[in-house]
Amino acid sequence: MNSRSNYLFIRIFGLVAAAFGFLSFSIADEGMYPLSEIDRLNLREKGLNVTSSDIYNPGGIGIIDAIVQVGGCTGSFISSDGLIITNHHCAFGSVQAVSSKEKDYITEGFLARNRREEIRAQGATVRITESYQDVSQEVLSAAHDTMDFAARSRAISRTIREMVAAVEQQHPGKRVEISEMFAGKSYMMFIYTFIRDVRLVYVPPRAIGEFGGEEDNWMWPRHTGDFAFMRAYVATDGSPAEYSPSNVPYRPRKFLKVNPEGVDDGDAVFILGYPGRTFRHRTSHYLSFEQDVRLPYVADINEWMIDEMRSAGKSERSIAIKFDARMKSLANVKKNFQGKLKGMYRLGLVAKKEEEEQALQRFIDSDPARRDLYGTVLKEIADMYADMRERAPLELTLDYIRQTSTMAGVGITLYEAVGELQKPDLDRESAYTERNYARTRRTIVQSIRNYHEPVDRIFLKEMLMRASVLPAGMRIAAIDSILKGKNTEEAIHRFISRAYASSKLHDTAYVLAALGKTPRELAALRDPFIELATALAPMYDELKQRRRWRDGALSKLYGQLVDVKEQFMKMDFIPDANSTLRLTVGRIKGYAPADALYASPVTTVSGLIDKSTGREPFDTPEKIKSLHKEKNFGRFKHKKLNDIPVALLYNLDTTGGNSGSPLLNADGELVGVNFDRAFEATINDYAWSESYSRSIAVDIRYVLWVTEKFAGAHHLLNEMGVSVSN
Amino acid sequence: MNSRSNYLFIRIFGLVAAAFGFLSFSIADEGMYPLSEIDRLNLREKGLNVTSSDIYNPGGIGIIDAIVQVGGCTGSFISSDGLIITNHHCAFGSVQAVSSKEKDYITEGFLARNRREEIRAQGATVRITESYQDVSQEVLSAAHDTMDFAARSRAISRTIREMVAAVEQQHPGKRVEISEMFAGKSYMMFIYTFIRDVRLVYVPPRAIGEFGGEEDNWMWPRHTGDFAFMRAYVATDGSPAEYSPSNVPYRPRKFLKVNPEGVDDGDAVFILGYPGRTFRHRTSHYLSFEQDVRLPYVADINEWMIDEMRSAGKSERSIAIKFDARMKSLANVKKNFQGKLKGMYRLGLVAKKEEEEQALQRFIDSDPARRDLYGTVLKEIADMYADMRERAPLELTLDYIRQTSTMAGVGITLYEAVGELQKPDLDRESAYTERNYARTRRTIVQSIRNYHEPVDRIFLKEMLMRASVLPAGMRIAAIDSILKGKNTEEAIHRFISRAYASSKLHDTAYVLAALGKTPRELAALRDPFIELATALAPMYDELKQRRRWRDGALSKLYGQLVDVKEQFMKMDFIPDANSTLRLTVGRIKGYAPADALYASPVTTVSGLIDKSTGREPFDTPEKIKSLHKEKNFGRFKHKKLNDIPVALLYNLDTTGGNSGSPLLNADGELVGVNFDRAFEATINDYAWSESYSRSIAVDIRYVLWVTEKFAGAHHLLNEMGVSVSN
Repeated sequence: MNSRSNYLFIRIFGLVAAAFGFLSFSIADEGMYPLSEIDRLNLREKGLNVTSSDIYNPGGIGIIDAIVQVGGCTGSFISSDGLIITNHHCAFGSVQAVSSKEKDYITEGFLARNRREEIRAQGATVRITESYQDVSQEVLSAAHDTMDFAARSRAISRTIREMVAAVEQQHPGKRVEISEMFAGKSYMMFIYTFIRDVRLVYVPPRAIGEFGGEEDNWMWPRHTGDFAFMRAYVATDGSPAEYSPSNVPYRPRKFLKVNPEGVDDGDAVFILGYPGRTFRHRTSHYLSFEQDVRLPYVADINEWMIDEMRSAGKSERSIAIKFDARMKSLANVKKNFQGKLKGMYRLGLVAKKEEEEQALQRFIDSDPARRDLYGTVLKEIADMYADMRERAPLELTLDYIRQTSTMAGVGITLYEAVGELQKPDLDRESAYTERNYARTRRTIVQSIRNYHEPVDRIFLKEMLMRASVLPAGMRIAAIDSILKGKNTEEAIHRFISRAYASSKLHDTAYVLAALGKTPRELAALRDPFIELATALAPMYDELKQRRRWRDGALSKLYGQLVDVKEQFMKMDFIPDANSTLRLTVGRIKGYAPADALYASPVTTVSGLIDKSTGREPFDTPEKIKSLHKEKNFGRFKHKKLNDIPVALLYNLDTTGGNSGSPLLNADGELVGVNFDRAFEATINDYAWSESYSRSIAVDIRYVLWVTEKFAGAHHLLNEMGVSVSN
Repeated sequence: MNSRSNYLFIRIFGLVAAAFGFLSFSIADEGMYPLSEIDRLNLREKGLNVTSSDIYNPGGIGIIDAIVQVGGCTGSFISSDGLIITNHHCAFGSVQAVSSKEKDYITEGFLARNRREEIRAQGATVRITESYQDVSQEVLSAAHDTMDFAARSRAISRTIREMVAAVEQQHPGKRVEISEMFAGKSYMMFIYTFIRDVRLVYVPPRAIGEFGGEEDNWMWPRHTGDFAFMRAYVATDGSPAEYSPSNVPYRPRKFLKVNPEGVDDGDAVFILGYPGRTFRHRTSHYLSFEQDVRLPYVADINEWMIDEMRSAGKSERSIAIKFDARMKSLANVKKNFQGKLKGMYRLGLVAKKEEEEQALQRFIDSDPARRDLYGTVLKEIADMYADMRERAPLELTLDYIRQTSTMAGVGITLYEAVGELQKPDLDRESAYTERNYARTRRTIVQSIRNYHEPVDRIFLKEMLMRASVLPAGMRIAAIDSILKGKNTEEAIHRFISRAYASSKLHDTAYVLAALGKTPRELAALRDPFIELATALAPMYDELKQRRRWRDGALSKLYGQLVDVKEQFMKMDFIPDANSTLRLTVGRIKGYAPADALYASPVTTVSGLIDKSTGREPFDTPEKIKSLHKEKNFGRFKHKKLNDIPVALLYNLDTTGGNSGSPLLNADGELVGVNFDRAFEATINDYAWSESYSRSIAVDIRYVLWVTEKFAGAHHLLNEMGVSVSN
């Protein structure tokens, strides 16, 4: 489940990501083309019948006008009345919000038999890309050569925020975002429309939409009906508005034609969507840091946390429910990281990069002028990662104190928030700006809701134990003062007993009230976790400074690296994914996941039923089984397989954020909805591989079959222009 | 790992197996042919160049004369000097026995560079089949129609023991076994030679011989080098003798030619070996009892036991080592049973059987004479299993009290042993006869060695809790008297605390001394676990009686069922596997383990290296990696794959006990060593399936490549007549 991974990545690695908060480059034919590159492509050569301008037609209408971002996912308009198709897992949060014991839409699914029955998808917004322009010059004008790296980094962020604020004032109702395309080098400004009234239309039961659950997550073969229908509503004048019963369906400039014939092995297909992030052309130093340090650390600590939560949940169902979402997120990241590690070792990625860099260095050194300009770029990048690697024990410990223990995390966030809220909006940390503060509050409330003291104690104890063995020069003074006394474990135990007994940070109202206080008032509360946060603050400040410094340095260095690499390779690069609209083209294609195994690219309902054990997450509704037994396939049968195809595999270049992206045939018609990648394809974030990069869609024939035969939603087929079968 | 499973099956289900201790029948072309059937086969039709008489040549010499049973496994002679090839996991126990910290043969492997360096494989014996004859009439003469079922069962067992004793006296040094071929119907007497001086010749390191460990167990694709070389020694006069330095290599009547060219996808192959047990033509009632009751119960309780042992082992390495073998055995059975359940559901086995039985019943009912004879056979069989099913909660609880808790198990065994040893040898329970008593003692000693009190308490507590919720009519009086008082858990806790505090049954010397006492002296020890055993004894006696009664009834009923089924099907049946020599013929062949997946039948060293994470059980020796990198394949390369083949998959009909069986090409030459089955093929015990029944061998080319290039044992290749490569 790509989008969830992406979301979690951002949530958990907020701090880490800050240090990595720049973008890299990727070789052109791997394939996440930004808007600006589309018209340079020869699509016929790639097997498509549509032309570049059918897809992207500035000033006119193209297929991209049907593509939206919905939550962290992609969706597409598929009717003139604003009907949207996306993934079940993208709509899941909204379904959960309106579900109750009486109306259990999660388990039963939700179907609006007419427009009046469509219910609000709380928290969901639909983002439509209106226009974009290159603003590199303006952004970079803020940076001067005399600045140190941290100052440069701060100056660029500030300029971006000022520009966004100014343009948003000129375009009321629009939202403006400036995306870094190449680190320290080029910036694009996107103007987006946000539709805020989004409603649920049809969401299949979890047993279809989430079939296979965590076990099948990141896996092929797959049998998940990961789709959902939603609808965008606007005010009667067509402008975006808050939810109102008087709103009317949005009429998109363009909607996709749904093709119930589907595609088959070998057919050309393409995807448009909003992939989150890739790190393709970072250097070997970055990759080996990931491979040796960060990925194993996170995979291991996640596994340990999951184990602890599972043990605690065994004894009581209510505790298991509290941990459910967090465990899933951690498991999703763990599996993703394990897949990445497997892929990196398999492809020998680090060694390949090192070879490339040696060749590049020889090219640089071969010309004195070039050497003057770029001679030390790789070395300086290496130094940055060497610093990161050396300080990782400390930095990961600091990150994970707040990520593992809810009480420590709430204390630290509270302390930071109260400090930041004193500052003018433009000077605040991003999480505490007016744009984002509401979300930060929601995150706090939610983490307290899922707080469970016994496990939180175990987490904090573990992190304090880890802090206790940090080497000299990386000690955390605030924790050393807790560790006083001969017996470390006993000292930690004493601190924890006292802190959990007296803290009130498990009380949501108390914490929300505390958020409104001044730093002085906050200190006067004398809460042990606020005191811990206060004591830790200098370390977290230092960490932020250091990351800003590295960030600034790497931003500049990666800009130079792209320059010289372009000279060396004699080609332009495609910027890494950055949540802006991208195109990727390829074919329906199987692969060899391992020695003596071949995975073909189409699964079937027979396979689904074969996997169905009757126990979650492999519990298929009886009606699906009986429809299949009766061979009641309607018009959606795959002739050769004599079955309904469920999922498709293809060699397109996708990553988190591409969830919900339309899978389009050579004529640009909808034939599937992208929702995941194969295990080995988790390395897409670092490199694309013809052998292993495979993404997964739910087949449109399964979508339509479930919608018609299982849900009986003939009106939706009619709306999509698909004639109902006999 | 088939043989281990088989061993464990027998160990854990001693009592259960007693109830199932009869054999069934199987349709001829599925394929485990006994000696008596071989000359009726048309082997050319099946793709073989060898004839039946090349394989089995009564009075002369055939390939079967090269096949031996070694431990619970099969092995084959491959040189004129008694060199034997079998599985690594079959030799493992012997290697473990001679390994120490200083000489860690498990990790390093063991190679005798010459005959003098060959070391004793403790506990290993080699069994050679000398002759066999049908003794059905003599055995059945003991049973009279007037006997009730339990008496019939006892009379048959007693007659068999008397016959064995008499014939063994006539053939000094031989061992005689009478095997039931068809339940209650036909019996074969086999005369075996046992060679007792067996030595280790070459055993690869665990990282080769057990590569993939539990994770890959029962799985394909596979990369395990599961082979070992041993040698049989005899006295200078050629007779079997205890180990002595003056013994000389045994000269077998026949040894197999090793063919270093191997086989490929589609080639005809066959296997000779000693498959343990199958239950192919038991009725639907048996299968649904397995599916609904026994397999899920055992899989679940094993999983729970493994979890508890793993938790306990986490804190201390020495505890983990104690539990290692037991956890592996439990995991092996658990995975096997899960595979069986998957296979049974997939193939709808129970429903298929029911259909067959309905057709058979119609055939029976269609003729009044036949109806008189057989009309109620199926109904009476159903009644037996209904009784088993109804009483399963009690019977499984009784079985698992002694299987889970070592202290309870030792107490019960001790009580039984002291009672049985008072009786004449012929009247004793099999475990306490002079033939078997030494083994029973060893089992006790070993279980005490691996005893760990905290986990044993958890196990006993769980079983007492389970006993506490048994329904009325199945209560265990001895436990009810422990449960006195209002709070069950507290009562159990009190009993356990007292019992573990005062029992001495964790002391091996004490237990061995106790085995020599009279029942009265034993009672005088007043050990709480002996007292528990004494109190439980009436229940265990009743259980044994009931099982003997069912056993007798089913033995007679299944005999009748075979009769009428032979009339119905107009064919003879092949008896189920019963550890006697069998032939199976088929082809090297891949399969589709799941929707959209195809597994091809040859794996490679490239795949092995791809799987190697560097962490156990996926830690391949560096030398293997470098030999592969240098493409130092010698003469063993698979031309098409340009690689060394590691494992082979084929549709032969094997089960536990076939471990170590030679895989032979169409000319009867050795091309691999059988060691496991694919996950779905665990249903072989109940049914053979062309779709799923696939067994696994280590390819002879990998065996020879490792032996030559990795171990440098050129002398062994010379001995096998394989010329060494450049």
